Amino acid sequence: MNFRSEELHIPRDFLATGWHIGIKTADLDFGVLHSRRACSAAAVFTQNNFPGHPVVIGREHIRDGRLQTIIVNSGNSNVATGPAGLALARKTCATTAEHLGLPDPSLVLPSSTGVIGRQMPGDVLLGACNSISEHLKDQADFPAFARAICTTDAYPKLASRELSSGVRITGVAKGAGMIEPDMATMLAYFASDAAIDPANLDRLFRAVMDRSINRISVDGDTSTSDTAVILANGASDVKVSFSPAADAEFRALAVPIDPAEIAKIAALDAGSAEFVGVLYEIALELAKLIVADGEGARRYFEVRVSEARDAGQALRIARSIANSPLVKTAIHGADPNWGRLVMAIGKVPDGPGDISRLKIFFGEQALHSENGSDPEVLKTLSAYIQDHREVKMHVALGAGDAQECVWASDLSREYVHLNSEYTT
Amino acid sequence: MNFRSEELHIPRDFLATGWHIGIKTADLDFGVLHSRRACSAAAVFTQNNFPGHPVVIGREHIRDGRLQTIIVNSGNSNVATGPAGLALARKTCATTAEHLGLPDPSLVLPSSTGVIGRQMPGDVLLGACNSISEHLKDQADFPAFARAICTTDAYPKLASRELSSGVRITGVAKGAGMIEPDMATMLAYFASDAAIDPANLDRLFRAVMDRSINRISVDGDTSTSDTAVILANGASDVKVSFSPAADAEFRALAVPIDPAEIAKIAALDAGSAEFVGVLYEIALELAKLIVADGEGARRYFEVRVSEARDAGQALRIARSIANSPLVKTAIHGADPNWGRLVMAIGKVPDGPGDISRLKIFFGEQALHSENGSDPEVLKTLSAYIQDHREVKMHVALGAGDAQECVWASDLSREYVHLNSEYTT
Repeated sequence: MNFRSEELHIPRDFLATGWHIGIKTADLDFGVLHSRRACSAAAVFTQNNFPGHPVVIGREHIRDGRLQTIIVNSGNSNVATGPAGLALARKTCATTAEHLGLPDPSLVLPSSTGVIGRQMPGDVLLGACNSISEHLKDQADFPAFARAICTTDAYPKLASRELSSGVRITGVAKGAGMIEPDMATMLAYFASDAAIDPANLDRLFRAVMDRSINRISVDGDTSTSDTAVILANGASDVKVSFSPAADAEFRALAVPIDPAEIAKIAALDAGSAEFVGVLYEIALELAKLIVADGEGARRYFEVRVSEARDAGQALRIARSIANSPLVKTAIHGADPNWGRLVMAIGKVPDGPGDISRLKIFFGEQALHSENGSDPEVLKTLSAYIQDHREVKMHVALGAGDAQECVWASDLSREYVHLNSEYTT
Repeated sequence: MNFRSEELHIPRDFLATGWHIGIKTADLDFGVLHSRRACSAAAVFTQNNFPGHPVVIGREHIRDGRLQTIIVNSGNSNVATGPAGLALARKTCATTAEHLGLPDPSLVLPSSTGVIGRQMPGDVLLGACNSISEHLKDQADFPAFARAICTTDAYPKLASRELSSGVRITGVAKGAGMIEPDMATMLAYFASDAAIDPANLDRLFRAVMDRSINRISVDGDTSTSDTAVILANGASDVKVSFSPAADAEFRALAVPIDPAEIAKIAALDAGSAEFVGVLYEIALELAKLIVADGEGARRYFEVRVSEARDAGQALRIARSIANSPLVKTAIHGADPNWGRLVMAIGKVPDGPGDISRLKIFFGEQALHSENGSDPEVLKTLSAYIQDHREVKMHVALGAGDAQECVWASDLSREYVHLNSEYTT
């Protein structure tokens, strides 16, 4: 998982690095991702009603679909810090733009992750903005950037591909690992040298995020700082488009999306289809790295819900299963406890009312009232869970033909330990 | 907590007991609550779409507002057991009615709690129904009944009062403790010798349950078997009423309800007001016993949300806080982590958007961005949490004047241990 730079397909004209500025005690805590030219850009942010100040500024700066630089600090989220915190987030962008000679502060997007409600050391942060060029030089050190945005992540998360057209995409993320005094936050940044206009990129990024990063659960809580951004600088001179018609076809595909289905989308030319497929692949890879690295997680699980009345019902039921502490602890303990799945399916208000049509699978093995107490079957399934880092669960509702899928961390004693034993 | 019979105020003409029938290995696993005469009755059941078969039968039998006998087994929930399970639940009522000489099987309400998806040993259960009278004799052994309905509860839960009118009320509950192979289930049974017609009793019971038992969270999961029932046999000859007007006044009171406010309800005569107040008090006492005995719980916490736009918003935010694994682990670790409260408040979709109006209290101490990093304040609050079995949190939203309150268990490593380390 811990990619070194030479294994990455760094998109042309992108620079990146990370270093220690002193918000954390010793680890890297400041990262920069920068393009030599202005980029088309798109972003999605937390749905939390109390977003961090950097999120507020980020929403402003993404409005015109143009960005050139992303600055991230870890160790302090700049949330619930009052007017001073908002002013500081704004000033980091102005300082960075001036320092790098960018024509407009709105070309900079800021992110912060870490403890909530503690005043940010403004001098330290602005000092970092003023020393970007001396640290950045001509480096494209994406792994250093990936390490600098981490909080309690066990490892940095990167994924990277080169397309047959020569276009490159690299994604970097940090996970929803949580430890006092840090706060749960998912951050993801994607860089590509494809040429795509902001409207097409926005449409594409939302569709892909909605079916990858937005399909994961560590503990059901929602950070105040979640941010995902993509920059496309056009340096490959390869054009990509994603029309509303392509969007509609893409969104009609069942999750998890089969790459072969993306290639069949009539409204996409071959090059754009490859780009969409690879971007989805990278996003899903990062999403799985995040749940696999949930705090204290021993394994993660895929919950596929099929034969639903509609995609909304499928997703609500999949999320109910994925977020259930009883299901999460059962997976942690390698217990094929299908009764807990029945409970989690049944608790969704608009769930199916007919239990006799329900089919439950662990891996390929069906479980129901006839064989659900059979010690041999349960032993086999417990071994299946033990043996897999990704456990696959599938529920067929018998109510229609829609399908959805989510991925989730298990729930361990280590999670509780990490989140309870370190006091403020 | 472990009341002996002589300390209870047993309502007149009620009998109760519990014994071992062999569904569990050794513990009491069958309980009976019986009135010498038919009772007015009311009940509320799980909202889970896959209710246990006993819940399906219970809903049928409560329809006319008349019951005389409740039979409960622990160790097997009779959920997801197909048509045979439904037929068995129905037969337990017919057998019990015939054995006790009741005119109609619909005077019997059945409950089952325990593992899901395992066929119930029908002969054992029907044998128990056929031997009720020899075990019951003339006993009013409510503690034995309370023990027989337990699964992983650390102690049986009873609460009991005698009113100035001489009316008696006794309540018995089992908690939402969960342990493989048993399943999370809340069961609560109330018996009184007040005289109240079924329509008034149904209205009253729903209003009281909605503000007590329905305000608790152990882990946010919803059992397939949750059941709460009240029987009132009129043996005290004291009449009680609860009109729609009284209901409206009662439901307008802020939760937690101040007993003095119930006494002021204009649509209640003094005797009925005392009955309502005491029934609420008993229900809240049982509710708190349940969260205090959540699996592995070290302490529990009250979440009061005031200054909300309306009661619905207050309740959604209170539940978001109470169900948050990050808040639960913080309380477990005696960490006054107000940043996690900010997160949990902000994640509610229709929550308040103005963080500057938010006021957060642990006990009486306010916490905000100015003092929220002060080591002395945090040390004092950590000691406050350490010292209390019931921790009080209060959030004032600054958005209106509605208030709600819920009670919740903390989240411990023992919870994870209990729910993951015992495989099927």
